[in-house]
Amino acid sequence: MARIPHVIIVGAGFAGLYAARELGNKPVRVTVLDRKNHHTFQPLLYQVATAGLSPGEIAVPIRSILSRFTNIGVLLGEVTGFDLDRHRVKIQNDDELQYDYLIVAAGATHAYFGHDEWATYAPGLKSVEDATEIRRRILLAFELAERKARLDNIHEPLNFVVVGAGPTGVELAGALVEIARRALVRDFRSVDPSSARVILVEAGPRVLAAYPEDLSHSAEQQLKQLGVEVMLNAMVTGIGPDYIQIGEKRLPTAVTLWGAGVSASSLATKLVEAAKSTAAEAPSTPATIDVAVPKLDRAGRVIVSPDLTIPGHAEVFVVGDLASVTYGEGKPVPGIAPAAIQMGRYAARTILKDVQQSAQHGKSREPFRYHDKGSLATIGRKAAVGLVYNRHLTGFVAWLAWLFVHIFFLIGFRNRIAVIYDWAWAYFTYQRGARLITGNSRSIAPIATPVPAEVPPVHELNPVSTIDDKRKVS
Amino acid sequence: MARIPHVIIVGAGFAGLYAARELGNKPVRVTVLDRKNHHTFQPLLYQVATAGLSPGEIAVPIRSILSRFTNIGVLLGEVTGFDLDRHRVKIQNDDELQYDYLIVAAGATHAYFGHDEWATYAPGLKSVEDATEIRRRILLAFELAERKARLDNIHEPLNFVVVGAGPTGVELAGALVEIARRALVRDFRSVDPSSARVILVEAGPRVLAAYPEDLSHSAEQQLKQLGVEVMLNAMVTGIGPDYIQIGEKRLPTAVTLWGAGVSASSLATKLVEAAKSTAAEAPSTPATIDVAVPKLDRAGRVIVSPDLTIPGHAEVFVVGDLASVTYGEGKPVPGIAPAAIQMGRYAARTILKDVQQSAQHGKSREPFRYHDKGSLATIGRKAAVGLVYNRHLTGFVAWLAWLFVHIFFLIGFRNRIAVIYDWAWAYFTYQRGARLITGNSRSIAPIATPVPAEVPPVHELNPVSTIDDKRKVS
Repeated sequence: MARIPHVIIVGAGFAGLYAARELGNKPVRVTVLDRKNHHTFQPLLYQVATAGLSPGEIAVPIRSILSRFTNIGVLLGEVTGFDLDRHRVKIQNDDELQYDYLIVAAGATHAYFGHDEWATYAPGLKSVEDATEIRRRILLAFELAERKARLDNIHEPLNFVVVGAGPTGVELAGALVEIARRALVRDFRSVDPSSARVILVEAGPRVLAAYPEDLSHSAEQQLKQLGVEVMLNAMVTGIGPDYIQIGEKRLPTAVTLWGAGVSASSLATKLVEAAKSTAAEAPSTPATIDVAVPKLDRAGRVIVSPDLTIPGHAEVFVVGDLASVTYGEGKPVPGIAPAAIQMGRYAARTILKDVQQSAQHGKSREPFRYHDKGSLATIGRKAAVGLVYNRHLTGFVAWLAWLFVHIFFLIGFRNRIAVIYDWAWAYFTYQRGARLITGNSRSIAPIATPVPAEVPPVHELNPVSTIDDKRKVS
Repeated sequence: MARIPHVIIVGAGFAGLYAARELGNKPVRVTVLDRKNHHTFQPLLYQVATAGLSPGEIAVPIRSILSRFTNIGVLLGEVTGFDLDRHRVKIQNDDELQYDYLIVAAGATHAYFGHDEWATYAPGLKSVEDATEIRRRILLAFELAERKARLDNIHEPLNFVVVGAGPTGVELAGALVEIARRALVRDFRSVDPSSARVILVEAGPRVLAAYPEDLSHSAEQQLKQLGVEVMLNAMVTGIGPDYIQIGEKRLPTAVTLWGAGVSASSLATKLVEAAKSTAAEAPSTPATIDVAVPKLDRAGRVIVSPDLTIPGHAEVFVVGDLASVTYGEGKPVPGIAPAAIQMGRYAARTILKDVQQSAQHGKSREPFRYHDKGSLATIGRKAAVGLVYNRHLTGFVAWLAWLFVHIFFLIGFRNRIAVIYDWAWAYFTYQRGARLITGNSRSIAPIATPVPAEVPPVHELNPVSTIDDKRKVS
């Protein structure tokens, strides 16, 4: 290979971005493809949704992150398919790009377990646009309540329901309480924001199910202390514009948010289909191409080989939330940022080794090993849980650890300062700085007109069964 | 009047907000009505449009600005009309609010001189949504050019055209050059952003026509020095998705922006109609109601009495960009923030005097006097012009004065620090921090497909005539 090999990276989330950085200024040409022009620091997205940070503080142009690497080009574009045989990525408008190595890091999206109609009423949180839409709904709910109270003397229940008590759901619920009890409390005249109820609805028997039981228990206590009502074993059976149905009972809602499920990007399916057609087209050359085809797991992720490639294609890596991998005694590698970063780096280093010893293309590769440093989940002011190198942390200590880790990993020095400034401000003043209601449509059109009904307290809502918990392992 | 009088303020721009502040914790009840939940610091909106600042840095929730005044309530709502006879403001959904005093400060909007179809292709800059849309178009133009160059090897002209060389047009043109020549220059591989052309098209014979001739001349020189091509006496006869027509010549464009005209909010018309119907309904009581009706000027603004009220309604004030007022020897009060602030304060103080001496309701009022401190227009880095207490400033001095004034008047201590930080960062690094392309639609859908045509250089475009310059006096 005298020619400089071309590596295409699809997606600039944590996995794709760290793969690109690892390949920066190395003897390869790299093209990063993404639908957005910015990398989103997803662990802090909930703070944009709850008006604590501005979008610009947690989203950085991919171009500027990678601009110092002259061998890396960035293209804004949507991948529509793959031709693995011809080593090509298809982009919208019938464009194509040829690769020597491909790293697919397209990530995950919301999953509504067959109820896609719920998406309108209960948005999930994956992108900057999701976050500003959620922010709009939350702030608008208070504004509409104030207007009804002032003009029509109608005081309707202000119920904020978060479905799913994984890390995102817990973060959202904790931040919502802080908005209502602290940030907005002096701003309204006819409505008392602190009368708002924040209800966290979970199908399973505990919050943060991926954590050890004692930490789940601690998280639940911390949530309740902040003022969140926690409903466990509660099966959501319906969601409408102004209500949520739990078992047989209806709860009127001002805003419903979805933190219950994610599934892999549809590019996983396209990749598997492309691999199948390659295998089918080349039955006469079984010696050169392994006819084993990749499969998807239940969450729609690609089940990869130990070197994170797909069977039969040692040049095609799948990393991050799109990859289904296990470690230790068959434990799934969790869908968290550190895991994505490790996978991205591993893929990049494996490619560099290949390039440097071009004879050994695809052979005798070290398998990917996930190094589990633990994880942290924040709940609210001075409230968090963490599992760090098998030590169980709770409360203030966990919260400090969470702060430190997230500031440290936040990409872009400039953003780090801005976020520290905003956090310090919010910590001491209890205010939230980014309380904008924006949107091209009439910003005052109500999303949901709350039903003026009696709200049964949570303990009267008897959950009858639990929904199949397909939440992403995290 | 034993009852506490109720003052309604429509619109929380500079005029409305400063009126409200003046009435804060005084013996009146105040309701501020606005379509948005935030006050927008319009003088810095162009920096959001050009990715220098985030929306949250120049837009602050109206509620939180006014929360310390317990006699002021804020309502999110759109005013649909007035019933001056019954002292009522109509809000959408058939709601009404009764007032004792009314301050209408609904501001201005874009005017396309009878070519409303141009609005799609050449957005103006009045709201946070406008600013993020313009930012999206600017950044997307570079992304699409990069993609075409990389995938199809097509190098199209990157022309950014700004129509109208008033303060907004000049600011936008100056910032655009800085983006292309400085901020993006290292970020692209297949396209050279500094090859982009920024063209400022003006119908009149000079830029910043509201300033003295020597300052106009200086501004033009400073623009050219930065790299802006200035076309004067250039009549725009057509605007399409990917071109602008100037006289008989077509210029292909990547992005077209509109800074050429503003006209008063449609609430001016509604106010005048309401006043007419009041006068018509009450012909038999000419002693109590002055039958003179208010009129609109050419820009759609309400021609007000010397006390900024409308004829026949001493309790209805019109302030800010919605009011047509003169000062000195019949000079029009300009549509700039300091004038709006002065009008808002004057209306509030007049109401307070009325309330304190309730017998003299509407009588022997001091007329409004505009105190002209001058104005500043920024062009770019170290480039500006200013007329401060009749002293002519240019270049670095004017720019420093502009910086100082805008930081000083920016509402919210928190935002002031954040903006200083962002500006210092941008000044030293030449980077722009808020380069997000966001939007709910597919963010990569092109707005305009540039015509792959030869672009005549500006000097070959012979403007044949000038359009009637109806720009807002500013």
